[in-house]
Amino acid sequence: MCRWLAYTGTPVLLDTVLYKPVHSLIDQSLHSRMGVETTNGDGFGIGWYAPDNDTPAVVRDTGPAWSNCNLREIADHVRSPLFFAHIRASTGAPVQQTNCHPFRHGRWMWMHNGEITDFHQRRRDLALAVDPALFLDIKGSTDSEMMFYLALTFGLEQDPPGAVARMAGVVERTGHDHGVEFPLHMTVAVTDGQQTWVFRYSSQGASGSLYYSTQVEALRALHLDVEFLQEVSDETRLIVSEPLGDLPGVWNEVPESSYGVVRPGGDTLLPFAPQPV
Amino acid sequence: MCRWLAYTGTPVLLDTVLYKPVHSLIDQSLHSRMGVETTNGDGFGIGWYAPDNDTPAVVRDTGPAWSNCNLREIADHVRSPLFFAHIRASTGAPVQQTNCHPFRHGRWMWMHNGEITDFHQRRRDLALAVDPALFLDIKGSTDSEMMFYLALTFGLEQDPPGAVARMAGVVERTGHDHGVEFPLHMTVAVTDGQQTWVFRYSSQGASGSLYYSTQVEALRALHLDVEFLQEVSDETRLIVSEPLGDLPGVWNEVPESSYGVVRPGGDTLLPFAPQPV
Amino acid sequence: MCRWLAYTGTPVLLDTVLYKPVHSLIDQSLHSRMGVETTNGDGFGIGWYAPDNDTPAVVRDTGPAWSNCNLREIADHVRSPLFFAHIRASTGAPVQQTNCHPFRHGRWMWMHNGEITDFHQRRRDLALAVDPALFLDIKGSTDSEMMFYLALTFGLEQDPPGAVARMAGVVERTGHDHGVEFPLHMTVAVTDGQQTWVFRYSSQGASGSLYYSTQVEALRALHLDVEFLQEVSDETRLIVSEPLGDLPGVWNEVPESSYGVVRPGGDTLLPFAPQPV
Amino acid sequence: MCRWLAYTGTPVLLDTVLYKPVHSLIDQSLHSRMGVETTNGDGFGIGWYAPDNDTPAVVRDTGPAWSNCNLREIADHVRSPLFFAHIRASTGAPVQQTNCHPFRHGRWMWMHNGEITDFHQRRRDLALAVDPALFLDIKGSTDSEMMFYLALTFGLEQDPPGAVARMAGVVERTGHDHGVEFPLHMTVAVTDGQQTWVFRYSSQGASGSLYYSTQVEALRALHLDVEFLQEVSDETRLIVSEPLGDLPGVWNEVPESSYGVVRPGGDTLLPFAPQPV
Repeated sequence: MCRWLAYTGTPVLLDTVLYKPVHSLIDQSLHSRMGVETTNGDGFGIGWYAPDNDTPAVVRDTGPAWSNCNLREIADHVRSPLFFAHIRASTGAPVQQTNCHPFRHGRWMWMHNGEITDFHQRRRDLALAVDPALFLDIKGSTDSEMMFYLALTFGLEQDPPGAVARMAGVVERTGHDHGVEFPLHMTVAVTDGQQTWVFRYSSQGASGSLYYSTQVEALRALHLDVEFLQEVSDETRLIVSEPLGDLPGVWNEVPESSYGVVRPGGDTLLPFAPQPV
Repeated sequence: MCRWLAYTGTPVLLDTVLYKPVHSLIDQSLHSRMGVETTNGDGFGIGWYAPDNDTPAVVRDTGPAWSNCNLREIADHVRSPLFFAHIRASTGAPVQQTNCHPFRHGRWMWMHNGEITDFHQRRRDLALAVDPALFLDIKGSTDSEMMFYLALTFGLEQDPPGAVARMAGVVERTGHDHGVEFPLHMTVAVTDGQQTWVFRYSSQGASGSLYYSTQVEALRALHLDVEFLQEVSDETRLIVSEPLGDLPGVWNEVPESSYGVVRPGGDTLLPFAPQPV
Repeated sequence: MCRWLAYTGTPVLLDTVLYKPVHSLIDQSLHSRMGVETTNGDGFGIGWYAPDNDTPAVVRDTGPAWSNCNLREIADHVRSPLFFAHIRASTGAPVQQTNCHPFRHGRWMWMHNGEITDFHQRRRDLALAVDPALFLDIKGSTDSEMMFYLALTFGLEQDPPGAVARMAGVVERTGHDHGVEFPLHMTVAVTDGQQTWVFRYSSQGASGSLYYSTQVEALRALHLDVEFLQEVSDETRLIVSEPLGDLPGVWNEVPESSYGVVRPGGDTLLPFAPQPV
Repeated sequence: MCRWLAYTGTPVLLDTVLYKPVHSLIDQSLHSRMGVETTNGDGFGIGWYAPDNDTPAVVRDTGPAWSNCNLREIADHVRSPLFFAHIRASTGAPVQQTNCHPFRHGRWMWMHNGEITDFHQRRRDLALAVDPALFLDIKGSTDSEMMFYLALTFGLEQDPPGAVARMAGVVERTGHDHGVEFPLHMTVAVTDGQQTWVFRYSSQGASGSLYYSTQVEALRALHLDVEFLQEVSDETRLIVSEPLGDLPGVWNEVPESSYGVVRPGGDTLLPFAPQPV
């Protein structure tokens, strides 16, 4: 399993979000409190959007995030209005760059915590369900990347919630066909650089933890002394696998079987269910 | 493309073959003379058989062989009667451990120089031709590993030359179906730890170079002063992508469209042709 | 801080000691119970003696041991009568191969858990105390390697316990000169391939944990069902940072301020104190 | 030896300079024409200045630049008005991140091609000449980093040309004291983020190649069709180990025993000689 974080809002140094918080993602790489594993040391990745380029930058490496000097350098020098960060605890697929999140396709990025049950046994069937033209772009061997390409196959670029629902439907059907009771566990974030969608779902109703930050306007009233809150816009939002600290009123659980849309003009939280294909 | 070497005979320190020769494989990683590329710096691998274990050890890494300290250490301390070594120059697939040769399946090892033309476009079709039960064990994304699993699908463990011929047949047919004139270029080595088979073939009749060493008995007469020749058995044999030095009479070209079998009791060289499946 | 293990006795597959035990060193890399840190993921190393070579092989890498495929391969195929293994949790020095243990000088190997307090500030003074001819061979930037070269300077190859005592003396004096109350914390293992010396000492009398295994003869009577004990000689011995499992009667604490000598013909345990130079 | 490049001028995507040119630095990592080695595959580094941060970002890695995905990503997404890039061919020091260029101290960056003759033997003496307070910050084991810290010791931050001259003086004296005829070969670039100084010198008068680009104003007249030249300011300048292409009139050799200053308001080229300390 893994831990991840999605930021969208006023452009900030990645450091502000990745390293500064008390229980930052980098701290979680050594001391996760809510993950299946305490240690998330099987690689990491960051993806960020830069001016004048629709395609996000994706930097990934196979060692632990906590000791990676290059991540530290980038975080200290790169600002972005929308970025993903992910630390990996492998559930079996090799520790290699092509298995690190986020995954990218054109201007889209995808990251995931969870697993497809018995993915090793399901891999071929699911690969066959991927659009042959898209199949060529699969680079690694994780269930997470396969889920991304299934979602792309089912229309991610036109209808993200629908495509993710159809992806989940195929994964569940494939599992059930082989007698797996609970085929899917996932928290997913996906973005096109403008809007970000996050999903929390598991067949068993026992998904990995997922939290979103309270509206900045409300937080400012609560925490007059937190400088960061004075600097960022009202529309700034963080979605995280686990809270980055203990500041009261900041973190709200994303409910089971739901998804959120983070976008300029107002975020929404809606129910999610897999959709048969 | 790549360079490789297969040793079989009297157990020797890997160093004797990997580092000692004038134009050793390690030297070839920086200064290949006959390869498509001068530099073979996209990872390397060694595989060796040890006493009391049918399964070979396979050690691979993603950096260049020429600067790898661990390879140097292993070569100085491990003896083996049968080992493979490979240095990689990627033709597109990512530089990662799971794409380094040799590949292993049970007691079998496989390594390759060459390519399936437009492999990226053929990957899905060829993957579908692999036995579904074997498909699960594919770890990387190279054409070389796919060829191994196709050969396993077509009976490598029972009839190596036949299985490789059928693999080549499928690769050629798949290419021809998509208008590729010359779908396959390969020099391959495969072993079960007892016998070793090597193949040189390309659709165009222009395969990568491949050489085998002259029988030790004859070499001893030629080169009385070469200590190594006094120490190894008559049945010791080296197969290499390019000669390891300029000693006269040592190296013989494996002819186009042929394969060799190296085994206790006498080696053989025979014609090779793809076989329709 | 770190965790380590030294084996000496009947030649065994490294796997038997490195991976097989319930709370193996590989398990400790993720879940150390007695170390300062739970996670020891900042590189690892193994060093082993092979037949016909006085110089040990030393294989080290910068990623976590728990996911390293090459370590797994070597452990499954290499047998040795005397080997060291070490997993690292950096106390500041960069995560790089030259900072991984064990360190080697000629036929000698050294590994360490602990630290020289404020080593960064002491580094120059201690470097000046190293024999200039030996200084040239220092490859990395850890306190551990510096301790090794100080011990070599003070006669490690002639009198290991005396040389380590003098090294500790210099480290303590250098610390005290700068107002450091407790300059040294160490558990150290050092070997020449024949004998192994282990040391447990800290200025504060609060050293890292260290255990030695009970004599095999006694263990056999206790644990008739443990196959391993039937296979190894009476003189087989393990020294470990923390016990590899919960088998009763196996593990004995090395007392504070003491050192042990493991050698053919009978091991000994003696008091240790730094010696002024 | 190595190859390097320094850019200063209108902020550009790193890609424009690192990958786009015909004989780019990335191409030189595989096919250097003027270097001592054809292949520069022993690590690489880039350093760039970003808005709102005096300290440059430094990203380095140990593999070859030609296959590094993260370098490609950064180059496609980061713009900077002043950056260094370096590809390494080790002359003996280990391939590790702390030995990759550029080196950084506060807001200063340093990179080097060349060597201190017999550096291994000179290392201790030169280390003793470094200011003890600065010594603590030396992270790696190269001659290049030692030269940087010697220059810092001799006043780099106040008087770069003078400090580099004194560094060269100490290196030459130390070599001559041990009977080395030609102790120093160097091309060096150093910057504080505002100005950049480049040096070409060797004791033997046979330094590595070094070129600077012609003034943009003159180039525009010559090459009306080169879009890049229309976009960048008159003060844009490139200093490179070897030309990035064959465009006539672009590249001018930095003469032996000279140094250049690149700064807003007008660049200068002056004679250089080591200075006794």
